[in-house]
Order: sequence, then C-alpha cells, then structure tokens
Amino acid sequence: MKELYFHRDSQRGVDKTFMWLTEEVGELGRAIRTENREGMEEEIADILAWLSSLANLLNIEMEKAALKKYGMGCPRCKSNPCRCTF
Amino acid sequence: MKELYFHRDSQRGVDKTFMWLTEEVGELGRAIRTENREGMEEEIADILAWLSSLANLLNIEMEKAALKKYGMGCPRCKSNPCRCTF
Repeated sequence: MKELYFHRDSQRGVDKTFMWLTEEVGELGRAIRTENREGMEEEIADILAWLSSLANLLNIEMEKAALKKYGMGCPRCKSNPCRCTF
Repeated sequence: MKELYFHRDSQRGVDKTFMWLTEEVGELGRAIRTENREGMEEEIADILAWLSSLANLLNIEMEKAALKKYGMGCPRCKSNPCRCTF
C-alpha cells in the first residue's frame, strides 16, 4: 500500500487522509444498513487501505502497532480468548 | 483476532461493534490533533482490531477483501504506483 499510494498520500497530507478514512467508515455504515454484502467487502478493504495510508504518513507500522497491543492476548485481561467481564 | 474476541463480538452484534469502530476513529482524530504519538499507534491498532472484529461478524475475510480490491494495483488506474490524475 505504501508503494501504491505513498506519493499521493504525501501530497494530500494527514488531515485530508483522515477525512477520507472517516468517509469510508460512513460508507461501510451505509453498506451494513442496506445489507449490501459486496459494498461491505469493498468498504472494509477501503478502510484498511486508508488506515494503512494514514499509518504510512504518520510513520507508524500498522502491523507492528497491532502486535504490540494485541499480540499477547487481550491488553486488559491478558487472556486469549479475552475473559474480560464488562 | 477472531480467536481472541469472536465470542464477545457475537454477543455484542454488528451495530454496536460498528459504533466501537467509529469511537476508535474519533480517538485517532484526537491523537493526531494533539500530536500524541503513542496514542496514534494505539488507536491505529484499535481501529484494526475493531475492523477485524466487524469483518469476522459479517463473515468477511479482511485480507482477502483487501487483496481482491488492491492486489492488482490501484483499482481505478490499474497501476502500481497509482497514476490517477485527479
């Protein structure tokens, strides 16, 4: 995703890329509400793409950030599966 | 993520899981606005986790959906890197 879009993401900047991300989240909401399965798939792919673009712009490695927080099980109860009771 | 949270996600349901996702997007917005780097990392990990939970609930394979849309380059111009001019 970095190779594919980084030059465009850089020109657009963080704020506008965040706006795109929120727009895709809204579109996913609509796909869910209207039970449009193809739309749901597409919008989930789009959110992942825009989140990845944003992470690249912020110089954050998305996978590494996810593993740091969730790689050892639930960050609250430390179990896998999660056993939180709230 | 499915192993870790699916039983809880199932109880919560799609609509509330979507609400959690939007909440995390809001928190990422705040982390960016306040230039809180640790927060940005955490919120990106959280968005990825909630998006994954939502995909599991909708029975969509997130990676497969992303590859389907972006695996062959930009879905609009078909190039990698993207060469769209708009």
